[in-house]
Amino acid sequence: MPPTRPIVTFTTDFGLADAYVAEMKGAVLRMCPEATLVDVSHVIIPQDVLAGAIALERAVHAFPAGTIHVAVVDPGVGTDRKLLVARVDGQIVLAPDNGLITWTHLRSKQISTHELLWRPSVESAHTFHGRDILAPAAGLIAAGKGDDVPTRRLDRPVLLEVSIAKSLDEAVVLHIDRFGNVITNVPADLVTSTTEIPDIGPVRRTYSDVAIGDPVALIGSSGLLEIAIRNQNAAVQLDLMVGNKIRFRK
Amino acid sequence: MPPTRPIVTFTTDFGLADAYVAEMKGAVLRMCPEATLVDVSHVIIPQDVLAGAIALERAVHAFPAGTIHVAVVDPGVGTDRKLLVARVDGQIVLAPDNGLITWTHLRSKQISTHELLWRPSVESAHTFHGRDILAPAAGLIAAGKGDDVPTRRLDRPVLLEVSIAKSLDEAVVLHIDRFGNVITNVPADLVTSTTEIPDIGPVRRTYSDVAIGDPVALIGSSGLLEIAIRNQNAAVQLDLMVGNKIRFRK
Amino acid sequence: MPPTRPIVTFTTDFGLADAYVAEMKGAVLRMCPEATLVDVSHVIIPQDVLAGAIALERAVHAFPAGTIHVAVVDPGVGTDRKLLVARVDGQIVLAPDNGLITWTHLRSKQISTHELLWRPSVESAHTFHGRDILAPAAGLIAAGKGDDVPTRRLDRPVLLEVSIAKSLDEAVVLHIDRFGNVITNVPADLVTSTTEIPDIGPVRRTYSDVAIGDPVALIGSSGLLEIAIRNQNAAVQLDLMVGNKIRFRK
Repeated sequence: MPPTRPIVTFTTDFGLADAYVAEMKGAVLRMCPEATLVDVSHVIIPQDVLAGAIALERAVHAFPAGTIHVAVVDPGVGTDRKLLVARVDGQIVLAPDNGLITWTHLRSKQISTHELLWRPSVESAHTFHGRDILAPAAGLIAAGKGDDVPTRRLDRPVLLEVSIAKSLDEAVVLHIDRFGNVITNVPADLVTSTTEIPDIGPVRRTYSDVAIGDPVALIGSSGLLEIAIRNQNAAVQLDLMVGNKIRFRK
Repeated sequence: MPPTRPIVTFTTDFGLADAYVAEMKGAVLRMCPEATLVDVSHVIIPQDVLAGAIALERAVHAFPAGTIHVAVVDPGVGTDRKLLVARVDGQIVLAPDNGLITWTHLRSKQISTHELLWRPSVESAHTFHGRDILAPAAGLIAAGKGDDVPTRRLDRPVLLEVSIAKSLDEAVVLHIDRFGNVITNVPADLVTSTTEIPDIGPVRRTYSDVAIGDPVALIGSSGLLEIAIRNQNAAVQLDLMVGNKIRFRK
Repeated sequence: MPPTRPIVTFTTDFGLADAYVAEMKGAVLRMCPEATLVDVSHVIIPQDVLAGAIALERAVHAFPAGTIHVAVVDPGVGTDRKLLVARVDGQIVLAPDNGLITWTHLRSKQISTHELLWRPSVESAHTFHGRDILAPAAGLIAAGKGDDVPTRRLDRPVLLEVSIAKSLDEAVVLHIDRFGNVITNVPADLVTSTTEIPDIGPVRRTYSDVAIGDPVALIGSSGLLEIAIRNQNAAVQLDLMVGNKIRFRK
């Protein structure tokens, strides 16, 4: 049986108008023509490392073992910030060492982090490490040539100041999705049948447990507490933004 | 000769900023690592089931036999709405039973519809059936394990109130595309060389049969009557919206 | 060893809401089910042939030999404009002969251009040559059946009025990217350590050679002079648009 085709995913803030994402994919395919390429998101708000970190974590937990994830939201390209290779629950992440790994780091059972030392033999631009370093390194690993990609242990990757709530007092808005659903940093195990949010009510099972237009709190598809308004945009209607505190009823 | 790689397409209103689409793809690849994945659209207006239904139908008629199409525009996720498996002209569609199949149902030569009874062994979130049920079921079918996906006959799928015009009196705007082209529900066989729309004129062969900036009616690439303005946005300039009636000259 | 899977890329102004891009991919997969499909961009501003030409050139130079590129920004669909097949540095481009090949033509070492004479046996719509002619022709070539795709030599493809600057006096803004970076038509070899732009300064190595919020000129990832503002939108802040002249200090 032939080996399974390697999967490489991409999470960037490069947008969709330019050829930048395709250039990264070309760099992967040069090294590993058999790779299956999957987009996670390319419309992360430019340089919003936290939003990139959250998309990346969702990808890491959705893909099978062996998947390689390339993430590039990189306001510091060209500075001396390091490049990162993380081994997470059987998968591999390549990203700048600028906090993009934060949410994956917090939510993974097992993670080890390394500095990527690989550089292309011919130095090209100094402004597109995603295409010139991360993508070809990912392609080499995908092609089974990981031994050609030198790394060294990096015990303290850069992490953003965000955390999984350890009590309801630490609850904040982590992310707002396309539908206006408000995703918090509160994991399911902090929530009980009596947990209640002022003006919203107890935590329900799904959107349709309330009437259309009513607010609802529930455990969303990433295992975190979400606030939604059924079939409407909760973030807009409740005026909630990333970083806002969520209050619970005592 | 190895079997052809299975094709799985995706039509959703999940947008491109979040990892939701990638999570569905991860679920397919877990079941069928060899699948070729193709996006139809993920920027269907949130919860616009009709727009999703039209994109889905175009995909069904564009892909080779054996393709599996996953469509998720699902305002009723979490309610007791059923999930659908349709066999259409040699292809398979998985979608919520909420009308998404409507346009495919109307325009297909041969279609049979079934209720999808497959559920994952470990129940996860109640808010993301696309990732947790439809995508893995599609992956099982793609992997040739369709026998593991239980279904039962569903003779009356939910259908939206839209129809293919049987006479010019029933003509309405069905869809407006990226270029502002106005696609109607009038099939080519209702149109003759004398068919004429007030202020627009007779039905032409292609855009360039009129001068730049002039309105033109023609049979578009899906075999339906379209109204365009050459190299401009007809929907904006003619103030036409989905559902508007189209009048013909008597 | 099995032959490498053929790669087909797509550059269009079709947008992401409609199924048009997927329909082209279906047409390729009908002819070549083993193809790896890669999006370059589908949000080229409608009918902006120059922007499409620039994205296409970047794709051509990013992908391995043998890649087939399909580009469709085609305000003249349905007119008698020709369809083009170009052989460029070991790759193949299919596009309308309307100037889309311009930037590739200017920046390639070796290019030969041909008129695509292949037409489908059953004539379909007159409004979607991307799906009905270019994509299936690309699929045939990808499947190794290039001999079934008749062409004839076309020595003078249509070219847009844009050029690579031969001196600093010819410098203009060629493109503005997602980040607001301003890409000019000035190649790296015109730039020296003393080249300086008024109000911006000398040409640096990378963005981080200036402070956040400061303007910077550098050689970007396509080997052209770029003007950026570190971590901000240079095009907006400096009020630069495509076609504007760039002045250099004497």
